[in-house]
Amino acid sequence: MSILVVGSVALDTVETPFGRANGVIGGSATYFSAAASLFHPVQLVGVVGGDYPLGELDFLAQRGVDLAGLTRETGESFHWVGAYGFDLNVAETRETRLGVFAGFRPHLPDAFRSAEWVFLASIDPELQYEVLEQVNSPRLVACDTMNFWIEGKRDALLRLLGRVDVLLINDAEIRALSGEHNLVAAAKWVQARGPEIVVIKKGEHGAMLMTPETIFFVPGFPLEELYDPTGAGDSFAGGFLGYLAQSGTCSSDDLRRAMVYGSAMGSFAVERFGVSRLRELTIREVEERVQAFRQMTTFETPIVAGSHV
Amino acid sequence: MSILVVGSVALDTVETPFGRANGVIGGSATYFSAAASLFHPVQLVGVVGGDYPLGELDFLAQRGVDLAGLTRETGESFHWVGAYGFDLNVAETRETRLGVFAGFRPHLPDAFRSAEWVFLASIDPELQYEVLEQVNSPRLVACDTMNFWIEGKRDALLRLLGRVDVLLINDAEIRALSGEHNLVAAAKWVQARGPEIVVIKKGEHGAMLMTPETIFFVPGFPLEELYDPTGAGDSFAGGFLGYLAQSGTCSSDDLRRAMVYGSAMGSFAVERFGVSRLRELTIREVEERVQAFRQMTTFETPIVAGSHV
Repeated sequence: MSILVVGSVALDTVETPFGRANGVIGGSATYFSAAASLFHPVQLVGVVGGDYPLGELDFLAQRGVDLAGLTRETGESFHWVGAYGFDLNVAETRETRLGVFAGFRPHLPDAFRSAEWVFLASIDPELQYEVLEQVNSPRLVACDTMNFWIEGKRDALLRLLGRVDVLLINDAEIRALSGEHNLVAAAKWVQARGPEIVVIKKGEHGAMLMTPETIFFVPGFPLEELYDPTGAGDSFAGGFLGYLAQSGTCSSDDLRRAMVYGSAMGSFAVERFGVSRLRELTIREVEERVQAFRQMTTFETPIVAGSHV
Repeated sequence: MSILVVGSVALDTVETPFGRANGVIGGSATYFSAAASLFHPVQLVGVVGGDYPLGELDFLAQRGVDLAGLTRETGESFHWVGAYGFDLNVAETRETRLGVFAGFRPHLPDAFRSAEWVFLASIDPELQYEVLEQVNSPRLVACDTMNFWIEGKRDALLRLLGRVDVLLINDAEIRALSGEHNLVAAAKWVQARGPEIVVIKKGEHGAMLMTPETIFFVPGFPLEELYDPTGAGDSFAGGFLGYLAQSGTCSSDDLRRAMVYGSAMGSFAVERFGVSRLRELTIREVEERVQAFRQMTTFETPIVAGSHV
């Protein structure tokens, strides 16, 4: 069964120290789908305006993304204008024009209601909840959020978390959500409110997985050239959920591998502007990067060190 | 052959959100020795004043630290007064009383000149260089530095780096030294100036090793309770050099394991105030933590993921 994703399908104008992209396709659901569809069929729910270059999403359809849930409404598409400095970890939002996204009420086509794997990208937690109400019996529900909702819709977010299995969130956000600076304490705070699986994304510092059974770290891939961090987190989520859906199980070992596949997809996403790197990416390249992660983190069982003491 | 360490032997007054330690023993050479001596004999070079509680260093002597190079001079010992906020990554120095350390000119006892492994803790790079001049034929020379020297003694530091094999440095410092924000580019900048082995310490985010042959990451140990970050970097260096000296070789595999032993020692150091945790630490506890690191970073060779495309 498919992976259902609900999120933004946007136009992005992004400036980094390495260049500028003007009105290119972006949005959380777009990045997620581009990443996840390398592993498993995806069903996308979102909204665009009359100005959206729908032809640019053809590559998603060709990879098995069902766009039947993408509605087109009269008006302008969601447009995000942002910039990054040399510290590529933090985006500065210069302009957000919501356009038709302002009135977005996700409505799932019948064929989408039986989705087994669900990713609720960072939109209003009330809408995230509405989506869940339309899915019959999901096997695994993952969601993302951000400070705007943590501050503005805290109660709705907490209600949502009670029905979520996996929270994917960045380090600053989980600190704001939990009030705990220590990430282990913050993850436990979240676990007590619903999601047993907590994935903390730390940008260049990698990501951390905490479940009741396991704790796992994956580093950030050491790219020397990194052009555009936009979409890295959603691409991570796409690799993570895509790998799990493909493997069909969620053991601790699967979750660990999913973390690495997620990190690999995030690392590819930032190598070029927009979705251009993900668009041409092959599964072989992903496998090679997963092996590179393995190489970067493996150490042999240590020889038991005697002490001269 | 022994590990030679030159650095500060200080009194620390430290305040963190979790408590306060008043005039306890500290200093880079002290932390380094406490960590390294669990693995290999150490020779310490430093200076203290008449006020220093030398008895507190007895545990080092009992572990095989030769204190013949620790001179006692008339005057006050080096005293550092610092504080940490809830973000335990950054220390705020409130007071530095150099005391007898201001006139420190390291002089190696004859028996120390044949040391094979050398750690030059973060002191004036001119003094670090003077120490090297007194060592006959070291097998591996490692050094640390900090922004104070990067800014104030840049030429002397660059001259020193030409004779150093391993630079252990934190992320902010290597960025300041190299002018490169990207850590891979920063490490290459350093490698071009001497040290083939670059270890970048990233506090809670772990550490990264770059050599011409290998790149390796180890995460920060996920401590829920962390009391005093003082000495974490020097304890890391002690575990790193101590493990290498004990194994007697410096292959890529050795260096990877040394990174994990270093991280383990750093993680123990911060569990209590001052050196109290390192003082009572056993090699068995270290081995258990190394296994925990392994558990936190291992993922099975992935099943080759087919694509549904």
